[in-house]
Amino acid sequence: MRQALDLALRGLGKTTPNPMVGCVIVKDGAVVGRGWHDHLDGLHAEAAALRDAGDKARGATAYVTLEPCSHQGRQPPCAPALVRAGIARCVCAVGDPNPKVDGRGLKILSDAGVETVCGVLQKEAAWLNRGFLSLQTRRRPWVTLKAALSLDGNMALSDGTSQWITGEAARAESHRLRGENDAVLIGSGTLKRDDPSLTVRAVEGPSPRPVILCSDPAVLEGKYKALRRDAIVFVPEGTAIPPERSGHVYAVSSSAARPDLKAALEKLAELGLARVLVEAGPTICSAFIAAGLADEYQLFVAPVFMGEGRKITASIRLRRMDDAIPMTLRGVRTAGRDLWIEGGNPCSLDWLKQ
Amino acid sequence: MRQALDLALRGLGKTTPNPMVGCVIVKDGAVVGRGWHDHLDGLHAEAAALRDAGDKARGATAYVTLEPCSHQGRQPPCAPALVRAGIARCVCAVGDPNPKVDGRGLKILSDAGVETVCGVLQKEAAWLNRGFLSLQTRRRPWVTLKAALSLDGNMALSDGTSQWITGEAARAESHRLRGENDAVLIGSGTLKRDDPSLTVRAVEGPSPRPVILCSDPAVLEGKYKALRRDAIVFVPEGTAIPPERSGHVYAVSSSAARPDLKAALEKLAELGLARVLVEAGPTICSAFIAAGLADEYQLFVAPVFMGEGRKITASIRLRRMDDAIPMTLRGVRTAGRDLWIEGGNPCSLDWLKQ
Repeated sequence: MRQALDLALRGLGKTTPNPMVGCVIVKDGAVVGRGWHDHLDGLHAEAAALRDAGDKARGATAYVTLEPCSHQGRQPPCAPALVRAGIARCVCAVGDPNPKVDGRGLKILSDAGVETVCGVLQKEAAWLNRGFLSLQTRRRPWVTLKAALSLDGNMALSDGTSQWITGEAARAESHRLRGENDAVLIGSGTLKRDDPSLTVRAVEGPSPRPVILCSDPAVLEGKYKALRRDAIVFVPEGTAIPPERSGHVYAVSSSAARPDLKAALEKLAELGLARVLVEAGPTICSAFIAAGLADEYQLFVAPVFMGEGRKITASIRLRRMDDAIPMTLRGVRTAGRDLWIEGGNPCSLDWLKQ
Repeated sequence: MRQALDLALRGLGKTTPNPMVGCVIVKDGAVVGRGWHDHLDGLHAEAAALRDAGDKARGATAYVTLEPCSHQGRQPPCAPALVRAGIARCVCAVGDPNPKVDGRGLKILSDAGVETVCGVLQKEAAWLNRGFLSLQTRRRPWVTLKAALSLDGNMALSDGTSQWITGEAARAESHRLRGENDAVLIGSGTLKRDDPSLTVRAVEGPSPRPVILCSDPAVLEGKYKALRRDAIVFVPEGTAIPPERSGHVYAVSSSAARPDLKAALEKLAELGLARVLVEAGPTICSAFIAAGLADEYQLFVAPVFMGEGRKITASIRLRRMDDAIPMTLRGVRTAGRDLWIEGGNPCSLDWLKQ
């Protein structure tokens, strides 16, 4: 199953809104077939592995990272294909919560006399497909909040200067994170201040779609790098949308003249975006943290003190220590001269059964 | 030499203002004697090792973590003792900057025909005795700033509540840090708010002397746990000192009604205190960081966001990113559920040649 998970990872950033899936076929203790879902519209992992195994699939065991599908989609269903190939046993890591599958794949297999097991390396497989699972069961993308901070929690000086808090190694990791996500979200403040391109540069991989959470619709008239053709812009309800932008600008309910985060995330899910990287400034980061909508944290902490300035939690005010907003630490290491802290929202991890 | 450094550590917290020293005597590839300076007024490491080695010291090599002393102090000088015992070779880690020694120990040895080497594991030995070296060459103690922080750099909520940001494991480490230091420094604000006892509890070891940096001399009239008999109190110049407190209360020059940090540190050096742990609140922590007087950082970071509140750098305001105050990361690990970041002031590490 570890091998199947490794194979699944080869589809990272290319399968959305499909899941990443890997499949290994084993017969008499030897691997006879390997496959993975490489990209949207490509072969499913099981079909690829069956093709690789050929006749050797008969009587073999298939290890799949996700329950084989039962329905005709962009590709033919996999559960019947496994049956036809004569697979004797199917071990999967995690069930497919897609209402079109949700146990039906396993049922097709067991009805046909194939022995089925589900739940092997479940945690790892759920983490791998956290975007897909979130889309299927929460109807919103998995949100990763990435921020560069000082030791004293600043994202910028009082005047907004933030380039560069962290070093090159941390910035390269940020590009890797962009490559793993379907969208990268900023606010109109960051758009105006930094005019970031939001593309993947330091590593290989497709660039995520820019998402602009827009409290200042005037930026729609401007020439900004991130406002490229595939950019998605959210504006508060009632904002007049320039006709040339229609189709990519969405008016959603708002609070304090800012598009509502939940409404924006729901729309992104509708658009099939499973993983969103938040690379915004303190105002939007604070809002995501306060609303419990940051599922995952990727914090790059530079070993410097910046004093008074713009904090990551600028607009959060607590009354009691019990109200402190917790993060579950998933790991800590260094990225060049900086610290790299990975964490998760305890509620999100709990939902994912991590 | 590693063994000698390990032996030296046995004197941790008990030798001030003397250095910690370890000595290993090796003959024909075998260890024939071990010794360490266990406590003030106790045998010196070399004397203890020579006693342990007996006649086997003749023709042997002595590994010492610090240059052997040349002068009669509380104990007889070690360099002549090594010569008398017939030591053939003396390897030391770091020279003794004490003006009464400072090369004289090595000269006595080489003049007597003993082969001498200095600089083996120098970095490790200098770090071990950073308190002693600071006292001898900078005339001020080595300052370790310990703080419990949230991910967003808070030491407390806006109302001052700070119990408890970090968990039990981090607090136990703080007690270990107290045991390694000669003094623990707080301000009158922390004294009034928390009334801490500042004793070593979670681990074995002598309690450091409390040092109160007092911007509110009225606390001298109060009954606070830390104001015990051995407490040292600094008040701004011109403050009337209650007669019953005289001898332990020092008036030093002040700025903004707070005793000057440098003046206080110089006085602590005069009193023979080599290592000071700062466990103060945001105001004093900020002052130490801004003045470049925090040599070492021990930061315990809880994985929580606290929003607006009292930041560790509350009173520091920078104008450019280049002015950010750097810390050299020495290590990061976890202490229970918290992060434990160890760092150093680059200037202090440079002075120590780390």
